[in-house]
Amino acid sequence: MHKVVDLELGVDILAANKRIAEENARLLDKNGIRSFDFVGSIGSGKTLIIEAIIEELKKRPKGGPKVACIAGDVAGDDDYRRFKKHKVIAENLNTDKECHLDAHLVSHALEHLELKKIDVLFIENVGNLVCPTDFPLGVNKRVLVISVTEGDDMVRKHPVIFRLSDIIVINKVDLAKIMEVDPKGLMRDAKKVRPDAEIFLTDARHGKGIKDLMKAMGL
Amino acid sequence: MHKVVDLELGVDILAANKRIAEENARLLDKNGIRSFDFVGSIGSGKTLIIEAIIEELKKRPKGGPKVACIAGDVAGDDDYRRFKKHKVIAENLNTDKECHLDAHLVSHALEHLELKKIDVLFIENVGNLVCPTDFPLGVNKRVLVISVTEGDDMVRKHPVIFRLSDIIVINKVDLAKIMEVDPKGLMRDAKKVRPDAEIFLTDARHGKGIKDLMKAMGL
Repeated sequence: MHKVVDLELGVDILAANKRIAEENARLLDKNGIRSFDFVGSIGSGKTLIIEAIIEELKKRPKGGPKVACIAGDVAGDDDYRRFKKHKVIAENLNTDKECHLDAHLVSHALEHLELKKIDVLFIENVGNLVCPTDFPLGVNKRVLVISVTEGDDMVRKHPVIFRLSDIIVINKVDLAKIMEVDPKGLMRDAKKVRPDAEIFLTDARHGKGIKDLMKAMGL
Repeated sequence: MHKVVDLELGVDILAANKRIAEENARLLDKNGIRSFDFVGSIGSGKTLIIEAIIEELKKRPKGGPKVACIAGDVAGDDDYRRFKKHKVIAENLNTDKECHLDAHLVSHALEHLELKKIDVLFIENVGNLVCPTDFPLGVNKRVLVISVTEGDDMVRKHPVIFRLSDIIVINKVDLAKIMEVDPKGLMRDAKKVRPDAEIFLTDARHGKGIKDLMKAMGL
């Protein structure tokens, strides 16, 4: 019963989400904001990668482009507080029991932001490899962050999110040896399900691979 | 809209799940099977911990209790094949787009198993910290496995699954130093949200902490 009801309902929810996502996209575009949806498991390194990008952007002339971050989590404000430390505009979005952000939640967060003052928007989705896949938020690019600590079988277990992401980041490559996981194997698996994605190996803790990733993001 | 529809529907789904979970529990009980639902993120070490327990049980007189495993994943059969290598009974459950197992899916898996021959059942849930919380499967105990690689803020981000688990395992403690995460901090956070849970520190790759965990599981 669960399955049937879910499917019937799903069509309406997904259509509503898509419509709101298109509105978000128009709004962001109108204000000249480049926007990114960071997805990936808890602990994959989404926050740290965004932080590293923020710091790189700050080195640019006149402090670089103006950055805003939306921190999405089931509970708590740990990531929000991390973003605030970098002196960027930040919003905290708690989903309570929902396992993903949706376009509607994001549209409310956008209402709280002074969009005219923002050049780049990073949205950090809830740490989850399944649920965000069906809910586009209306951003320019979705960036999937995985970590070698998640095991060598993780592309095979979650092919859909790889298929629906524009940029794939394999993080914590410094731990590859100790974890006995080959990042190139993950890369090969990822290319199989998403042949045209740009894939990057990073070690965000030590700032490695961030500049190449930024180029792919047009930053 | 999404939220409202979800909530109204949720009541029916959760009630139906609970009813089927109770049926599963009766069936397992009737057949004298001790059963466990392993939840936790991808890469937290659920499979490896179950494998370590299986090998410990095999050392018992007459090969120990008869074990069966149900491997739950969105896609693929990586974990199923790992269980089969240990010569235990195993079933693979692919959820396709669902982010969790539910009692109904498990009831079908139970139909495929010769329950009279089984003493211990390990169910490995989909790697996800949000969605399995609301769906009890009808087992004796839920075991939550987290890893220090998931960051020092993960209890604060996902309090509900801690609250709804009977045993909490903090795995990969051998990586605590290199990850700069204090397992005792995670332990303290976990005790705050679930004061009566039994909490264990393990390093499943090197077999550490497994025997203590087994005691708490009554194995």
